[in-house]
Amino acid sequence: MTLADRWLLPDGIEEVLPPHAQQIEHLRRRLIDLMDGWGYDLVMPPVLEYLDSLLTGTGKDLDLRTFKVTDQLSGRLMGLSADTTPQVARIDAHSLAPEGIGRFCYCRTVFHTRARSLLASRTPTQIGAELFGMAGVEADVEVISLMLTLLRASKVANVHLDLGNVGVYRAIADQAAIAPEREAELFGLLKLKCASDIDAWAEANVADKAAADALKVLARLQGTVEQLTERFEQLIALVPATATELNHLLDVTRRVASRHPDVPTCLDLTELRGYQYHTGLVFAAYVPGYGDAIAQGGRYDETGKEFGRARPARGFSADLRVLARLGEFAPAAKPVVVAPEVEDPALWTLVQQLRDQGMRVITTRPQDSQQAQQALQFIDGQWQLVEVPTV
Amino acid sequence: MTLADRWLLPDGIEEVLPPHAQQIEHLRRRLIDLMDGWGYDLVMPPVLEYLDSLLTGTGKDLDLRTFKVTDQLSGRLMGLSADTTPQVARIDAHSLAPEGIGRFCYCRTVFHTRARSLLASRTPTQIGAELFGMAGVEADVEVISLMLTLLRASKVANVHLDLGNVGVYRAIADQAAIAPEREAELFGLLKLKCASDIDAWAEANVADKAAADALKVLARLQGTVEQLTERFEQLIALVPATATELNHLLDVTRRVASRHPDVPTCLDLTELRGYQYHTGLVFAAYVPGYGDAIAQGGRYDETGKEFGRARPARGFSADLRVLARLGEFAPAAKPVVVAPEVEDPALWTLVQQLRDQGMRVITTRPQDSQQAQQALQFIDGQWQLVEVPTV
Repeated sequence: MTLADRWLLPDGIEEVLPPHAQQIEHLRRRLIDLMDGWGYDLVMPPVLEYLDSLLTGTGKDLDLRTFKVTDQLSGRLMGLSADTTPQVARIDAHSLAPEGIGRFCYCRTVFHTRARSLLASRTPTQIGAELFGMAGVEADVEVISLMLTLLRASKVANVHLDLGNVGVYRAIADQAAIAPEREAELFGLLKLKCASDIDAWAEANVADKAAADALKVLARLQGTVEQLTERFEQLIALVPATATELNHLLDVTRRVASRHPDVPTCLDLTELRGYQYHTGLVFAAYVPGYGDAIAQGGRYDETGKEFGRARPARGFSADLRVLARLGEFAPAAKPVVVAPEVEDPALWTLVQQLRDQGMRVITTRPQDSQQAQQALQFIDGQWQLVEVPTV
Repeated sequence: MTLADRWLLPDGIEEVLPPHAQQIEHLRRRLIDLMDGWGYDLVMPPVLEYLDSLLTGTGKDLDLRTFKVTDQLSGRLMGLSADTTPQVARIDAHSLAPEGIGRFCYCRTVFHTRARSLLASRTPTQIGAELFGMAGVEADVEVISLMLTLLRASKVANVHLDLGNVGVYRAIADQAAIAPEREAELFGLLKLKCASDIDAWAEANVADKAAADALKVLARLQGTVEQLTERFEQLIALVPATATELNHLLDVTRRVASRHPDVPTCLDLTELRGYQYHTGLVFAAYVPGYGDAIAQGGRYDETGKEFGRARPARGFSADLRVLARLGEFAPAAKPVVVAPEVEDPALWTLVQQLRDQGMRVITTRPQDSQQAQQALQFIDGQWQLVEVPTV
């Protein structure tokens, strides 16, 4: 094996070097502080735990994406956390179990056996927030607002928002009485967003005429509120059980738009991302020129049940490193001072003072002082800061 | 499996809940900023990488402590990083390869199949710094000073410092011509620090009289500089090759003491921790009532060679969560304000302003407002901050 081969990193795994690491660190702080300001308490779930705990209440998809290792102490299988949300749901239901509303945020590495997409890392730095025990439009508006505020703080430009609601599909599927073994087919077609194929499938597989027609309408529910208003009315006439979730969606959309008038919003009712997991509104933020969502989330009321406490739950997450890469966030640079390699208590005291004042003081040899703006020199019997002439 | 069993975490693996997570986060920031002020650039090595890269230049001990998983993309074995130092050495030698001095710091989770001790976590948050390309007493003093400054910033009380030098043992072992297969025995005796057993072993196994006597002196080299001065002279007379490293140790000890007069220092030349890895001075910080070192480090000049560039190297590391637990560091608490769940653009604007000013504003229902000091109320036609009477 040659040196070059030896240092090749696995696909989808990165090392972060200066000054990029510093940018990510400071963005991390800004975003955690922002969530803290909204009342979201930081939690640090275990990165490694017994597989049966880790995968409780999650789907097969997460199982396949989870790295497994054997615990040498117990002989049991452990998994590396691939998603923080179920762990935070457990903290809400089991470890903390607050009486009132639970607001939690997190930021840490998660591990994926395979990346979620061609663009994604296998060790993303997942940052996100979860809101428990608060139902209604307000809860969705809070979580979406917080996500958009995080993107703004990351200085990501031209964000647009997609909103969907898996509850609408659920209501239609109930009335259509789709056999579970056929559902995967329909999901595939909805994912391809090909309306004519969905029409054909609905006619061939759904006996209930109204439900079949509703699926055809659903296949075309992508656009702005204005473009879709008429189709929403058609859908409610065909499947009345969709009314609650559609009206909820419209209400959330209106309120988010009033808070974030600069963020264009599209509705997409064919979006069933995380269907096994989500129970209502789902949302995702995109920017032009980047194929994946840069942040996404939704409602998942049922997850807590596995942990002994089902209650309203929603949240979002993003990859901090993607936000750092796509955004313009930059930490302020510290002034750099070089100090000579001299053992003198007066110099040591002064150096410590300058560092406490926020300067970067590097004790170094003359040949290594290229990056400094100032230097400490012994002049007239005392240590003084002098400007370093730029070359 | 009952609910209680399901949420049991593996031994040596923890979840961190509020408010402790917030304390750890802010201590992390303080310590990274402190290292940055000393000129140490933050790096984020990969947490997962091919096993042959990860274990290059490290010992069998690290191999056994490393969790292994199969890369589904390449079929090759990958390992979870169990120690950040060799990865930073690679960054210095290969990824960045700075011409002058290289100063790097890091803070991230590492993974151990078995904990290093009964007290240790299997997923410690390793924080540390590495200094490359700087030789001499100054380099050791800088790294030890930085470590002690970090402990002080963590508000850990009653720190004392142990200093050793594996180079002294190396010089004696060279002269004693100890057979490699017998060395493990001697190491075991030195670890037990039982002088009479070492005496017997030296007489039985070392033909060179001076070297055997030197081993007997080494067995008793534990104490303060004052206590050991005479024995140092004896040792140098028996094995002249020890002079350089002993004088280096004394010089470092003297300079560290002048910078940190409040930290008691002991010398211990029988300490051969990380012998396969370290090449010179080694050091560790302890506090009363905690059996493990709370921070430790040393010199490891040879590690970079495997990465194509051997140069002077030293560093230290600690577990951030141990420092948070043993220290008194506490972040400042934010004032908490509750705002009612009302959709009003004026309220939204005001809430955002208060959050930007560093307040924690929670939109909530009346029953959930116990923790607030202030509330936003609509009085005389505008939103106002009012004090909440403490119950």
